Amino acid sequence: MARVLTPRAEDFPRWYQDLISKAELADNGPVRGTMVIRPTAYAIWERMQADMDTRIKAAGAQNAYFPLFIPESYLKREAEHVEGFSPELAVVTHGGGKQLAEPVVVRPTSETVIGEFMAKWVDSYRDLPLLLNQWANVVRWEMRPRVFLRTSEFLWQEGHTAHATEADAKAYTLKIHHEVYERHMRELLAIPVVLGRKTNRERFAGATSTYTLEAMMGDGKALQMGTSHELGQNFAKAFDIAFSGVTNAREYAWTTSWGTSTRMLGGLIMCHGDDNGLRIPPALAPIQALVTVVKETDGSVTAAAQALADDLVAAGVRVKLDDRVDTPFGRRAVDAELKGYPVRVEVGPRDLAEGRVVLARRIDGSKTPLALGEAVGAVTAALEADQKALYDEALARREANTVEVSTLDDALAASATGWARVPWSKVGVEGEAKANEQSITVRCLFRADGSVPASQDEPDLTAILARSY
Amino acid sequence: MARVLTPRAEDFPRWYQDLISKAELADNGPVRGTMVIRPTAYAIWERMQADMDTRIKAAGAQNAYFPLFIPESYLKREAEHVEGFSPELAVVTHGGGKQLAEPVVVRPTSETVIGEFMAKWVDSYRDLPLLLNQWANVVRWEMRPRVFLRTSEFLWQEGHTAHATEADAKAYTLKIHHEVYERHMRELLAIPVVLGRKTNRERFAGATSTYTLEAMMGDGKALQMGTSHELGQNFAKAFDIAFSGVTNAREYAWTTSWGTSTRMLGGLIMCHGDDNGLRIPPALAPIQALVTVVKETDGSVTAAAQALADDLVAAGVRVKLDDRVDTPFGRRAVDAELKGYPVRVEVGPRDLAEGRVVLARRIDGSKTPLALGEAVGAVTAALEADQKALYDEALARREANTVEVSTLDDALAASATGWARVPWSKVGVEGEAKANEQSITVRCLFRADGSVPASQDEPDLTAILARSY
Repeated sequence: MARVLTPRAEDFPRWYQDLISKAELADNGPVRGTMVIRPTAYAIWERMQADMDTRIKAAGAQNAYFPLFIPESYLKREAEHVEGFSPELAVVTHGGGKQLAEPVVVRPTSETVIGEFMAKWVDSYRDLPLLLNQWANVVRWEMRPRVFLRTSEFLWQEGHTAHATEADAKAYTLKIHHEVYERHMRELLAIPVVLGRKTNRERFAGATSTYTLEAMMGDGKALQMGTSHELGQNFAKAFDIAFSGVTNAREYAWTTSWGTSTRMLGGLIMCHGDDNGLRIPPALAPIQALVTVVKETDGSVTAAAQALADDLVAAGVRVKLDDRVDTPFGRRAVDAELKGYPVRVEVGPRDLAEGRVVLARRIDGSKTPLALGEAVGAVTAALEADQKALYDEALARREANTVEVSTLDDALAASATGWARVPWSKVGVEGEAKANEQSITVRCLFRADGSVPASQDEPDLTAILARSY
Repeated sequence: MARVLTPRAEDFPRWYQDLISKAELADNGPVRGTMVIRPTAYAIWERMQADMDTRIKAAGAQNAYFPLFIPESYLKREAEHVEGFSPELAVVTHGGGKQLAEPVVVRPTSETVIGEFMAKWVDSYRDLPLLLNQWANVVRWEMRPRVFLRTSEFLWQEGHTAHATEADAKAYTLKIHHEVYERHMRELLAIPVVLGRKTNRERFAGATSTYTLEAMMGDGKALQMGTSHELGQNFAKAFDIAFSGVTNAREYAWTTSWGTSTRMLGGLIMCHGDDNGLRIPPALAPIQALVTVVKETDGSVTAAAQALADDLVAAGVRVKLDDRVDTPFGRRAVDAELKGYPVRVEVGPRDLAEGRVVLARRIDGSKTPLALGEAVGAVTAALEADQKALYDEALARREANTVEVSTLDDALAASATGWARVPWSKVGVEGEAKANEQSITVRCLFRADGSVPASQDEPDLTAILARSY
């Protein structure tokens, strides 16, 4: 088979770009850093959205929609926030053919504008918690764009909540972090993530605590898959989100925000992709089984393939029939591997004459002849097994490429090819600055029992150091 | 009961604003013309989206996502298009702290940027038809904004397709118009629409034919609920969307576009709302039945209400339990009327002692005592009946407020309070210009059998004239 993609071991970034282009996942947009999400990738994103949306609603949040345009002055009300986002803003200066009196920014995130409305809607402690989420596009001007990972415009969900107490806000932030995000990534995306706290240096601009989910990509680098922030009373004070408590005293609310984005599509590709293309976890895959007519003779092969496809649909499998017999079988097989359908069932005239089909599993490239009557059971069994196998494989790779070290120098050395686990006390803010000079970052901090610390000053924390996207 | 809303007959626009505010549907955003869609309205929009998305996919289109930012030069490639949209553009001149070499516009619609990518993806007639749709926000700077109806930013779906022949493009445009849009509006929104062709004057900027769906609002004005456009080869030529046909000759494709937006939320309010608030058709309503605990004594009322709510859920009804007994019943009833839940089931201690509950139907304000055991059946029957009744009521109002006339002057007079049906030959381009001077527009043209004409020059066409939103 001719080489379709640059092998990962040869040039991982090139492999990534090749795959995105050849699997028809995305294109670069005409304005620098923007992207076109093509139907193949968008269908995956829709399934991510549906699953995440269900989990967010189960956590009690309601969807709403806030404006794309934010007055420039809003961002300036929270000092760290404006400092963090100013370099990335797109600014609208003209509207309706006239210069605007006040320039407006295209939202890089919506804490400010949502804070303004929370202040209007919250009056009493009875109005709390106020749990909101929106699905939206945001813009952060990117100097070094890369499709899905860093784009000037991306799609995401951003949750914004207000609570009566710090403890409530913290509990909700962690609920999203642990229950919504981690489970979505594990159960749907089959991506193992390390949960931890960001250092003060890596914290979201305006937050008091940022909790992160970090995944290891196929090249040993880390990708931040999502974050959940405690914002303390920073935005509540800036936007006057205040309420009368049980005693009628006026108090500021405690707010949170949390987001996951189309960046997860990049994580999916780089976590599960192999040298033949994408591998989509069965639970996520818009098409789980491709039923392929190998060759047609008298119409009976297509008829048998269609009947099998119908049986699979009846068994709850998401199926596509590939009956494009005028396109060479080999080319269709390569395309199917690129697009990462979890299984293919090849239906050919010779096998069929013997009552057989072939089950091809994307995860390992295995091909197994099956009696036609066993095909549905074999497909559903393979889909279930491969969802777990993809997770296990990613976890095993992460373990194999994570080194336990006890000095900063060893951690920096280990970060050249994978992750380093190192006592945070051996790194500290000075070690962190030194690591950053080598393009290595502290991905997160966690306690010995794996839980997330309340501050980076807690004793006995472990840090993960790595290069990252 | 105290007056909650300005009555429609007194001041319809004021009633609309009151309702939107008091039913907590939306707020004005801080940047002029933008809006905040609050959870109550957003939940309705999500159900509209889900239904429309299913219908669009059933019509063969795939979802994708194209960038928010479009190079200014793209718009200029199609002369009518740029002329139509220039006055409404928001322009980004600065990004990442620097002035941009070429200003970019925030998409007012995406024919241009999608045209650019269609040109890349289409090579042979085998690549056609290419059927795309996207859910996105768009920006058109509004001088006279009104929430949902005319906002500087709104949410919509925009479909964009390319075809090998003019006949194919026309058929698909009409399929969307007739099968997707009309049925969505009739079956889900319970809004009767008149299908027709826009005059050349009202046509979409860059289209060769625009087909529209027009609904009558509670004040007799018309609202354009959606449009489907044949774009001829205008954009294909501007963006070089060309393909090799069966004979290998290079030909330009024929493209279409079609859209419906959050404007439909405004249509829903103004079509079905009454002096007590919104009325949501049961098929659309996120919450179909509100089970209200009138008063609690010893916990048994709430328990009975919860049991009934569970039975309703088991019967497939979307239910919310209102057990906020510390809020006065009257206030909760007013709020429920405002928000338009199709039915309420009131569970009170006195009725319950006699084995009864009360069914309150939003459509007509009727209250019917029921045996508890009959409640589920009565609710499901009411939901089915009221879906139809709302449609019938809207249709009857439209018929009652549409006058058949045979001269332009009579048509203009009739348009003061409703719609005028008049032979297009009695209006013509001169009559249309005269009507426009009085803020009356030709909403659409159709043939005697109700079908849409191929041009405004066909003989024996009927025109609808009306004031509009």
